[in-house]
Amino acid sequence: MKVEYINPFIESVYDLFSTMLGDEARRGDVGVSKDNPNPRDIMALIGISGHARGMVALSFPKATALNMVNKLLSSDTTELDDTVSDAVAELVNIVAGGAKAKFPKEDGKPLDLSLPTVVRGSGYEVDYPSGSVWLEVPFESGLGGFTMRVTFSFEGDGA
Amino acid sequence: MKVEYINPFIESVYDLFSTMLGDEARRGDVGVSKDNPNPRDIMALIGISGHARGMVALSFPKATALNMVNKLLSSDTTELDDTVSDAVAELVNIVAGGAKAKFPKEDGKPLDLSLPTVVRGSGYEVDYPSGSVWLEVPFESGLGGFTMRVTFSFEGDGA
Repeated sequence: MKVEYINPFIESVYDLFSTMLGDEARRGDVGVSKDNPNPRDIMALIGISGHARGMVALSFPKATALNMVNKLLSSDTTELDDTVSDAVAELVNIVAGGAKAKFPKEDGKPLDLSLPTVVRGSGYEVDYPSGSVWLEVPFESGLGGFTMRVTFSFEGDGA
Repeated sequence: MKVEYINPFIESVYDLFSTMLGDEARRGDVGVSKDNPNPRDIMALIGISGHARGMVALSFPKATALNMVNKLLSSDTTELDDTVSDAVAELVNIVAGGAKAKFPKEDGKPLDLSLPTVVRGSGYEVDYPSGSVWLEVPFESGLGGFTMRVTFSFEGDGA
């Protein structure tokens, strides 16, 4: 996948923070994900398909997830419970949906999103098919740090 | 989601076993997934979108994953390494791709698949958005047991 494909996703994270969280997110350097034996405490995934196939994952340490969800819901949850899980699923849906709207439609075929899924825990690894390249973007914000990983390939671009 | 929507996925698992694994899979009763604090050792996920949005997950205990992958690749791997992870990703791709081919195209808009992702480990939970219903199908086979979970909703069916 080409590095510029990640820009709509980064902009969508910025939009999420400015419009829904009253905060600002700043990205670090975009890199290539390596298998990570110690992912963050909670991760939300959503699939992308259409003229591109891919997956987007947002991974949060517990503190960031709680800060974001409590800000969003005006709540004071202290555990990664089902409410947090639901809200984090909605966050990845919003980020991917925002990015989708920023991509040009090719041949009238827009990108489509799957339903989100959330993985939480402390003892798991996330693997990506060896033929795919995952780009990783670290973010900092007033609500804490988190990571976005994105992979996708457009039909025919061979990536 | 309607129970009959799961049938193309079940048939696709049967096809996988009969055509690629030289074995036979038998399903147990279809049920509604509950959050599971102890999923299997390795899980492959793939997103579905198009006129339906969803996600399909295949979860395997270590022994079943190794048996299936070793049969598929004529290998004798004993650990859940990157080769196994790649092969399990391909299995969920094959099952979802087979199911996709069995669904009628509506308005010329077929179902599309995202890229697969694999989660492996022993300390994680998988959560589904509370508004979605995941159907779970246990399978038995000569290569061991495993579980398929499927959720999706068609546009306008309110499920």
